[in-house]
Amino acid sequence: MRKFLLASVLSASFSTPLLAAEAAAPATPSGIVAAAPASEWVRIAPENLLVMDLAPDAAGKPRRVVIQLIGAPFSQDWVENIRKLAAAHWYDGIAVVRVQDNYVVQWGDPDGEDAKKAKPLPAGLAPTSQRNYSVAISSLPANSRTLPPPIQVCTGGQCPDQPALPGNLDWRPYVARNDIYAQRTTFKNGFPIGVDLDAGLAWPVHCYGYIGVGRNMSPDAGTGAELYAVIGHAPRQLDRNVAVVGRVIEGIEYLSSLPRGTDEMGFYASPSERVRIAKVRMGTAVADLPGYQYLSTESDSFAAYAAKRANRKDDFYTQPAGGADVCNVPVPIRIAK
Amino acid sequence: MRKFLLASVLSASFSTPLLAAEAAAPATPSGIVAAAPASEWVRIAPENLLVMDLAPDAAGKPRRVVIQLIGAPFSQDWVENIRKLAAAHWYDGIAVVRVQDNYVVQWGDPDGEDAKKAKPLPAGLAPTSQRNYSVAISSLPANSRTLPPPIQVCTGGQCPDQPALPGNLDWRPYVARNDIYAQRTTFKNGFPIGVDLDAGLAWPVHCYGYIGVGRNMSPDAGTGAELYAVIGHAPRQLDRNVAVVGRVIEGIEYLSSLPRGTDEMGFYASPSERVRIAKVRMGTAVADLPGYQYLSTESDSFAAYAAKRANRKDDFYTQPAGGADVCNVPVPIRIAK
Repeated sequence: MRKFLLASVLSASFSTPLLAAEAAAPATPSGIVAAAPASEWVRIAPENLLVMDLAPDAAGKPRRVVIQLIGAPFSQDWVENIRKLAAAHWYDGIAVVRVQDNYVVQWGDPDGEDAKKAKPLPAGLAPTSQRNYSVAISSLPANSRTLPPPIQVCTGGQCPDQPALPGNLDWRPYVARNDIYAQRTTFKNGFPIGVDLDAGLAWPVHCYGYIGVGRNMSPDAGTGAELYAVIGHAPRQLDRNVAVVGRVIEGIEYLSSLPRGTDEMGFYASPSERVRIAKVRMGTAVADLPGYQYLSTESDSFAAYAAKRANRKDDFYTQPAGGADVCNVPVPIRIAK
Repeated sequence: MRKFLLASVLSASFSTPLLAAEAAAPATPSGIVAAAPASEWVRIAPENLLVMDLAPDAAGKPRRVVIQLIGAPFSQDWVENIRKLAAAHWYDGIAVVRVQDNYVVQWGDPDGEDAKKAKPLPAGLAPTSQRNYSVAISSLPANSRTLPPPIQVCTGGQCPDQPALPGNLDWRPYVARNDIYAQRTTFKNGFPIGVDLDAGLAWPVHCYGYIGVGRNMSPDAGTGAELYAVIGHAPRQLDRNVAVVGRVIEGIEYLSSLPRGTDEMGFYASPSERVRIAKVRMGTAVADLPGYQYLSTESDSFAAYAAKRANRKDDFYTQPAGGADVCNVPVPIRIAK
């Protein structure tokens, strides 16, 4: 009798046990990740974690969403504001106000548009500017080690010559030359980035589960008080138009499976539909937090994992893709044992 | 006081009213679609619709998912099997057995792996073969009209010369040259496709909301009795490895917002978590079905819409993307008035 499977991708759902078959054969992306040595995993410091507890669900079940904030030099004005807002407990009691299918879940002050009722922001938030959606490639920190040549991912037969590249970019593990939204895409310190070599600029990109800063019309660049998480196909058109500040590393399902809003753009039509955010704290203020790690994007295992994601050929896959877009190479996350 | 918005994309949520600002200015993708003349909309015949009614939710609310089956010459063995399975009422009483975040919702016979308990398939299903995941470009039907040159979408400054292309492809509205998973991507008869000009082959691609056929390990190609819908970033690595048979055009939220499964690969750990499928019928067997239409992918409005999706510059977007991947140009769907 048929077994009817659809082979899985390794997603950020790190707590899911691997299939026995996958664990036995590191010829799959998840097998490669499972076999990575401890030295290749990087601890995510609690000071870079944002812990958001939604109000419990109808059955009283807790709903905790853990967010990894992006590191320097990307989006640091917004990230610092988010630290201040969390330290001031400003987010406590705000709500998820919008869930648009195949796009975003958004949360903020439901009364933010009403000057009389809006929740006052804490003092000392940094001014923000759309100029800082990108950073100079020259400002990126050095790699942790000298990396061998990159694994180049490009569609079969259409792979142009590899140019000389700045030494402080993680070109080793992965480089997509035929990305539609950027000259190149790669990873830096565990985050996917887009690169414009001619302009000398790099920026974090919007993938599934990534967090951005809601804002008003340009030139407003948002403060960090209103945030959204991507719950659909990567809306890469938002890259360099909004600040990306991090990604969900646990509990994305508490956002992605919320009822969709029926008003314009997926806003909840009635206040009663909103989901209350009980509290948001920095990881340093949460006692029982597990030890999260990401697989170093400079590691040999990440390089092998990215290459395998781009070229699967096994008992299930007969036609290797010959490439993978940067959002289809999710950075593996796990909880340290 | 800040208004805190994140500008919307036009998704397949055709019933959502447009924002007033968008309706007034057809300089946005959704404005272009709203202004498209009636002659550019194509009726979706009821014989190409599959109507799946999940059991009502906990509050007793109906949950109807409407699927548009893909037209010839793509995946026709599976599509014909699906018609037979629906006509035989075979799908009635099966269940959603898997919901994996950022990947798929899958439904089928929960006892399908148990030879003694599995639900017998109706007689007369066509044998299927992985050879038919792709079709010859030469077998594609002619366009409905002579189309002007294509709108080429490619990352700024890196747009190579346009080659001569077969006349029966909808090259006009959109052509992505730097897709990572195919030599080219375009649209044919309302569906996004990948193209390999050297091999002379074309195939339907996996985007958000698209329906594929679950199967066992290769060379099994599935029957159509087990199906899945994409609920995350487009898993394009599945292209040419699984049969794509259609897309959800209404009710995707009843699948995408289901609780995620906690077992391996998102399968529901307990039978009690499964969501029962009450019945599945062809559109011809459903009395109260509205008149669905899609925007012709050969139309002037679709061409303008695709170009605008690739190059937004307005009060919200200051940095046009310069391109759009084929899954980021969702084919507009509406209900005829």
